[in-house]
Amino acid sequence: MNDLAIHLTDENGKHLYEQIYEYIADEIREGKLLAGEKLPSTRSLADYLQVARSTVELAYEQLQSEGYIESVPYKGYYICRVEELYRIGNSANRAFGRKTSESGAAGNGIWGTGTAKGEETANRQGSDGMRRERKEGCEGMEPKAPSGAGRRFDIDFSPNAIDMSLFPFGTWRKITRDILSGDRKELFALGEARGDRSLRETVCRYLHASRGVNASPDQIVVGAGNDYLLLLLQYILGRDITAAFENPSYRRAFRIFSSFAARTVTVPSDENGIRVDGLLSSGANVAYVMPSRQFPTGTVMPIGRRTELLRWAGSAEDRYLVEDDYDSEFRYRGKPIPSLQSADTAGRVIYIGTFSKSVAPAIRISFMVLPEGLMEVYEKKCGFFASTVSRIDQTILNEFILSGAFERHLNRMRKAYREKHDLLLECLQPLLDRFRLSGEYAGLHVLLTTREPAGEEALLKRAAERGVRIYGLKEAALAPFETECATVLLGYGGLDQGKIREGIGRLNEVL
Amino acid sequence: MNDLAIHLTDENGKHLYEQIYEYIADEIREGKLLAGEKLPSTRSLADYLQVARSTVELAYEQLQSEGYIESVPYKGYYICRVEELYRIGNSANRAFGRKTSESGAAGNGIWGTGTAKGEETANRQGSDGMRRERKEGCEGMEPKAPSGAGRRFDIDFSPNAIDMSLFPFGTWRKITRDILSGDRKELFALGEARGDRSLRETVCRYLHASRGVNASPDQIVVGAGNDYLLLLLQYILGRDITAAFENPSYRRAFRIFSSFAARTVTVPSDENGIRVDGLLSSGANVAYVMPSRQFPTGTVMPIGRRTELLRWAGSAEDRYLVEDDYDSEFRYRGKPIPSLQSADTAGRVIYIGTFSKSVAPAIRISFMVLPEGLMEVYEKKCGFFASTVSRIDQTILNEFILSGAFERHLNRMRKAYREKHDLLLECLQPLLDRFRLSGEYAGLHVLLTTREPAGEEALLKRAAERGVRIYGLKEAALAPFETECATVLLGYGGLDQGKIREGIGRLNEVL
Repeated sequence: MNDLAIHLTDENGKHLYEQIYEYIADEIREGKLLAGEKLPSTRSLADYLQVARSTVELAYEQLQSEGYIESVPYKGYYICRVEELYRIGNSANRAFGRKTSESGAAGNGIWGTGTAKGEETANRQGSDGMRRERKEGCEGMEPKAPSGAGRRFDIDFSPNAIDMSLFPFGTWRKITRDILSGDRKELFALGEARGDRSLRETVCRYLHASRGVNASPDQIVVGAGNDYLLLLLQYILGRDITAAFENPSYRRAFRIFSSFAARTVTVPSDENGIRVDGLLSSGANVAYVMPSRQFPTGTVMPIGRRTELLRWAGSAEDRYLVEDDYDSEFRYRGKPIPSLQSADTAGRVIYIGTFSKSVAPAIRISFMVLPEGLMEVYEKKCGFFASTVSRIDQTILNEFILSGAFERHLNRMRKAYREKHDLLLECLQPLLDRFRLSGEYAGLHVLLTTREPAGEEALLKRAAERGVRIYGLKEAALAPFETECATVLLGYGGLDQGKIREGIGRLNEVL
Repeated sequence: MNDLAIHLTDENGKHLYEQIYEYIADEIREGKLLAGEKLPSTRSLADYLQVARSTVELAYEQLQSEGYIESVPYKGYYICRVEELYRIGNSANRAFGRKTSESGAAGNGIWGTGTAKGEETANRQGSDGMRRERKEGCEGMEPKAPSGAGRRFDIDFSPNAIDMSLFPFGTWRKITRDILSGDRKELFALGEARGDRSLRETVCRYLHASRGVNASPDQIVVGAGNDYLLLLLQYILGRDITAAFENPSYRRAFRIFSSFAARTVTVPSDENGIRVDGLLSSGANVAYVMPSRQFPTGTVMPIGRRTELLRWAGSAEDRYLVEDDYDSEFRYRGKPIPSLQSADTAGRVIYIGTFSKSVAPAIRISFMVLPEGLMEVYEKKCGFFASTVSRIDQTILNEFILSGAFERHLNRMRKAYREKHDLLLECLQPLLDRFRLSGEYAGLHVLLTTREPAGEEALLKRAAERGVRIYGLKEAALAPFETECATVLLGYGGLDQGKIREGIGRLNEVL
């Protein structure tokens, strides 16, 4: 099946792998390649196109991670069933890289200038530029000893730790100083309830460029952390909801929903994420999902499941998806996967993201993007709540983004994390006869699952005895669940290379 | 009745009026002066004590504003009924001015040094030092035209406006710069959920010194604005509560309680504040009060009513008082009135205050002091919510207070507001044949009530036609209420002297 009429060019500034990826994705979405069809092998397509085999591999990986194709061991790559078109614009303007029509004022910074050159830059940034750090602390994932209290760990593979050593303190200081020096008294006045307009415009452009999010600045609500924004959902969605979570999931969000929702349920998931049949039988009308990378399992939700989910949400009046897009931008291979919100034509996705971690944990700035249909109820029920974020902080962050410092910071962090990730994978090689690796190439942790039946507690204990803290999958459980094999999480964001080597070395001795 | 054995001294650094005030207050609380007894006239007591008559007048005013005595026109001063002792320590250590036993580290700053001289300073600061600016915007009090939209006002007597022109931007900038220059990476990490320990310790000492609040730093929860803290109360108090408010009251708080409480009710109030018989018959178990100065009526709750309220709260398991102490420290005569919390022996007062306005509206930092008995439920139900205030901002504020800059700022603001207040009163003289003045000598607004029956809307409209925005009492109504005479609010915080003169001049012509 070498009839892929891919016309490669180096004129539009796109990587060859991107062109291959886009061509095949378009063919699939347009129904020209059908579910179950086999793709040419990477070798034969590379020969045909006269490109390096690794280029085709990268394109296939991207297609695979987005759920367009799947790999069957010893057989090859097959087209997956994609129920409906994923609405992210035409292929030349796939999701990221374009300014929204109203963002003409931007001029420079991360969204380019709107010229062909700008587009190119923006597209690259789409794939490499905008990265954010990860999630707020997941309670239940604290570095406490799994067996016996008070133990000190030499090495902590916390999946929540981040690396602050590269933060541009000087730049932050300079921006702060410039803003405070301006004698801008208006910054000390109370700002708009949903956040300063200028920051919302910036967030809006950022989300569109990096995550394909379609929204106007009016739909954005800035708040002091995800927890606060989730609290507001009790007013926006009402309290008479049944909220569904995967198990395991992000426990803090589960606890917050449990604090106000009439019912919270856990729904089975599989290797593609939350199961829609489970959603249906649970009677849930709200589902909390992390399609870009589920915490803690690392599952990337493929396009087929996304489409199913969106169809589920669209098929009844009061159904909503809460998309927590917490670390979608730390991917070390391929392009970022567009947000679920970008494919939502029915207005059923509430998108939540945080700047707290992309800048620093102490900066309490998160945001949510509400569907237009919820703006009226937001305004009525929550519109009077005073903003929870200092205007000065909003202005500093806005300038940090507009100046390009944010982008540079994210690129630096992505490189640093990728190096740690690659080292970790290298160090883990000797363990792979006993463990299956998953969740790699993205985020700040990987997962190891025993190949033989084993208990999680025992693994954590053996690691702890060597002064190494690792985390069990069940520590993120919302409700008890049974597994034959044990899975542990290894976070590497907060560890330097020496600690990673040393830590994995010790684990190799005891696990 | 010249048998007041007051022994005046200038040794302990106390003002003479304070000594007179304290002596009489002690006598009343100890039952040596009984309800209904008449006090000597100011002239005769001044003669007796060989002090200026104004000194005695000041002492009597203080006693009167705290509800110990009342003035009967053309008759004199009488002792009020004080049901129970007001627990604010012995008279030598009345409420303010002492460090808490655990605050030995303070050393300097606003609480003195702990020496006799320090005590003196602290006592003065108790009366003059710690002032905060006022309340967040009261919705329903926006400067919109009362009749017809779109009108622009030349002069806006908003009761919410504050004067930012004297804010020490330079000091704030310097503190910020110093903190960011310190390369203190830990400030960029996520801090404690209830706020940084160091800030909570500072707030704790501040509240003890200035408001008599008795609490440990553990009982303090720092949050991004009052609205957020009130939202947390749905978890701490539960949602199955009946919350009582005066009418009119602070509408934003009413709306927030209405958003989660099973029931919210309005309860009649009189010239002493919310009526306890009304509370009893309403079936409420939570009451939201502003004893230091009710918004918008300006009522200062006398000690008798406070005692009644505390007794009400203490007489059933689930009763709580939410004390919003929003502008207690802007008083232009006498000593500040201790908080209701300072007299709460049963642990039923939840004290809420804000730094957002004492520093600037944009700084989103409020705090609440929970009774010890509620800490367990707080920890269980809210302890996992991440802090909503940036650690950097917390550190800046802490340093702003500890350095003494906060105290200097508040003193400066108090002086500025007092000057505006005094000018306003002077300008209002020609109107006092038609209006009764109330709410003066504290806060940032006064009230004018017509001496003849009148409609509020008509007054607002006539003022608006001269380009002057004044505010009607009914604009703060939680539910419609009928009055024969109309009452309007005149806020002066945001106006300069010229505007005050001009605005009142215009009002005098049309009202």
